[in-house]
Amino acid sequence: MTLRAVDIIQRKRDGAELGVDEIRFFIDGYASGAVPDYQAAALAMAVFFRGMTAAEIGALCESMMRTGEVLDLSDLPGPKVDKHSTGGVGDKTSLILAPLAAACGVYVPMISGRGLGHTGGTLDKLESIPGFQVRLSLSEFRRVLRSTGLGLIGQTPEIAPADRKLYALRDVTSTVESLPLIAASIMSKKMAEGLDALVLDVKVGDGAFLTKYEDSKALAQTMVSIGRGMGKKVAALLTGMDQPLGRTVGNALEVVESIETLKGRGPRDLESLSLELTAWMLSLAGASPSLEAARGQAREALRSGAGLRKLQEVIEAQGGDPRVCDDTGLLPRARETVELRADADGRVTAIRCRAVGHAGMLLGAGRETLDSRIDPAVGIVLSKKVGDLVVQGEPLLTVHVDDRGRLDDALAILREAVAIGPEAPPAVPLVREVIA
Amino acid sequence: MTLRAVDIIQRKRDGAELGVDEIRFFIDGYASGAVPDYQAAALAMAVFFRGMTAAEIGALCESMMRTGEVLDLSDLPGPKVDKHSTGGVGDKTSLILAPLAAACGVYVPMISGRGLGHTGGTLDKLESIPGFQVRLSLSEFRRVLRSTGLGLIGQTPEIAPADRKLYALRDVTSTVESLPLIAASIMSKKMAEGLDALVLDVKVGDGAFLTKYEDSKALAQTMVSIGRGMGKKVAALLTGMDQPLGRTVGNALEVVESIETLKGRGPRDLESLSLELTAWMLSLAGASPSLEAARGQAREALRSGAGLRKLQEVIEAQGGDPRVCDDTGLLPRARETVELRADADGRVTAIRCRAVGHAGMLLGAGRETLDSRIDPAVGIVLSKKVGDLVVQGEPLLTVHVDDRGRLDDALAILREAVAIGPEAPPAVPLVREVIA
Repeated sequence: MTLRAVDIIQRKRDGAELGVDEIRFFIDGYASGAVPDYQAAALAMAVFFRGMTAAEIGALCESMMRTGEVLDLSDLPGPKVDKHSTGGVGDKTSLILAPLAAACGVYVPMISGRGLGHTGGTLDKLESIPGFQVRLSLSEFRRVLRSTGLGLIGQTPEIAPADRKLYALRDVTSTVESLPLIAASIMSKKMAEGLDALVLDVKVGDGAFLTKYEDSKALAQTMVSIGRGMGKKVAALLTGMDQPLGRTVGNALEVVESIETLKGRGPRDLESLSLELTAWMLSLAGASPSLEAARGQAREALRSGAGLRKLQEVIEAQGGDPRVCDDTGLLPRARETVELRADADGRVTAIRCRAVGHAGMLLGAGRETLDSRIDPAVGIVLSKKVGDLVVQGEPLLTVHVDDRGRLDDALAILREAVAIGPEAPPAVPLVREVIA
Repeated sequence: MTLRAVDIIQRKRDGAELGVDEIRFFIDGYASGAVPDYQAAALAMAVFFRGMTAAEIGALCESMMRTGEVLDLSDLPGPKVDKHSTGGVGDKTSLILAPLAAACGVYVPMISGRGLGHTGGTLDKLESIPGFQVRLSLSEFRRVLRSTGLGLIGQTPEIAPADRKLYALRDVTSTVESLPLIAASIMSKKMAEGLDALVLDVKVGDGAFLTKYEDSKALAQTMVSIGRGMGKKVAALLTGMDQPLGRTVGNALEVVESIETLKGRGPRDLESLSLELTAWMLSLAGASPSLEAARGQAREALRSGAGLRKLQEVIEAQGGDPRVCDDTGLLPRARETVELRADADGRVTAIRCRAVGHAGMLLGAGRETLDSRIDPAVGIVLSKKVGDLVVQGEPLLTVHVDDRGRLDDALAILREAVAIGPEAPPAVPLVREVIA
């Protein structure tokens, strides 16, 4: 029986479960150009409506992964482990946990993405460090990994090219918001990294990519089962994204905060989530006898400064200026700052995360479309977090701005984003649930 | 607010009703190339799942029509009326009713299609007449119409180009079976013919394009409402396609049967449906004071031979050999005939229409794919129809064949298609329901 793309589309359209052979045929054809964009768009929309079974999602992930190179890091003498976040506002944990984990003896081959819309991206943050190169070839990546224990790069053309192509197509055909396609896309890249273990940080709440808790949970479960189906140790932490993580939003500002955190002077929420994710990485990778022991190792790597030194090493290995770790004044700085002050006494009851991310984007810290240019220096520094006491006239946050063009729009959004009321809301733990 | 194709897709995906401006923007862009195939494929699949309101379908139809030329036949001194069938097996009524209606004083500007799969097409039948040209320019078409009162051509590139493009795309993206898209596609071409009135023959039953009665009825209602929304008189007849219409299936064989019918010697079902559709055409177009009077006019045009003379005129005007009306031996004839005989006594209880059409296709009378070549001479002649008495060994049908390559397959299908039992099934009227 000859496979035809049109029949595969029809079977998915009519609710059938596609076979591994059908999915592989379609994805291989799409990567080679034998299956045109219009057939892939029709299939993606059919998947949007019909969903996919776990077996289909696994086959989709593996097929996309196999269209490109799959790293074999077995020559590196230690476990390989990475963390992936579904994206948030002020989420700079990668810059903290990757050095901490590497300092504890595991390899962290991290292939990251860029920010889009209200969410930031690790690559953009790294590129605010003068000289830092995120576009390494796979052989350079391997060299940096071997020498420092970690490497921080962007998706290369060799990694899952079918996913790159499909992701760009989904963006222009309104088929992004499909759980099976999101899960397979993320995992096709992560599974190409040659990992032993992967920790997923799936954001929940207002600032998360998926705003409904149950959707985020389903995504987490799906990704965990894909990874396990491919023989990897995988756990997912569902973590709150109801207010920005830490106090900074904006690329260079977040690098400064990450360095401060590695010096033991970071905000509590950012430090504790970074340590917890590091502990899960060490524990899943088998580098610690227990999660509790791993937590101790992670804390020690922070306290001793070993994490900070690892960050400095990788910055140097990837062409950046390592002195930024000692003197953050070397990072780009915006021309001016504008304070937003409280117009009432009370407690901060909410800092709407999506709105803060959106304001950051208007200032130039994020991308409106895939080809927008970003300004590494600009962003927002929160003086208050949810639960804090405020007095009328006190600064709530500071905006770092270069181009005043959209400043008023950003300030208006920020003014709305910070809510002040009589009482602090009940404290909620940052880690809501663990799928392990 | 700038319209963007990606937003229009998303709104349809999420179940919103699209505005006329959105649909026009998308279709105009698709016709011009500004909206690429992959976005049209995604929209078509979203429409497959979400459907369209009557207002959306009307806007889609009109937008597709307006991407091309819309005939203005107001200079012709009389009402303009056409008939469209959703396609069947042995359905040659167009060849009979178009001349009959023209003989009764209306203009019939008929733009037809080709057969595909188990169904035949008017153009293929006409092309079995030596010399007959179905590819006229619109100005030649206009000249033939003026001189003879009817014209029978294929879709030209000037008529609804967006529909041509979308139809080809739907064929390769499994988005054919969508009622709104089917209805808008048919009507975008018919409404470009410059008609005053249109009669729709929507087939129901085993041999129909849509096999469920309710689906055919919904299609009929949708097309009627589109046409009326565009200011035309439209009626739909739901007619049975449970056995082939008349006794012949195959292009030249059907032309012979049409000529015989115009001579008053046709099979009862074919004659009566052709007359009834003619009467509806005359009555809707206002060429008769009542449907009953129109029935009388149509019968008289048949009895007097005026219909046959009109057919002869149009054949001559479109380059065909008009002598075929007197000597059907001038039409192509297959090299040999093979009889299929009854293997039991009894009554014919069913002649499965889709199977007969499929057997005809295997013999070369129809197209398996859009670019298959057809053989005008081959086909099937039924000796028995449903309800007829048969004696074991009597011929049930005769196969006209040129290439024996797939004869055995065709015969096996035909053997299965004709069912013989003890009792005739209850007679059902050919016209099941009228939407007027």
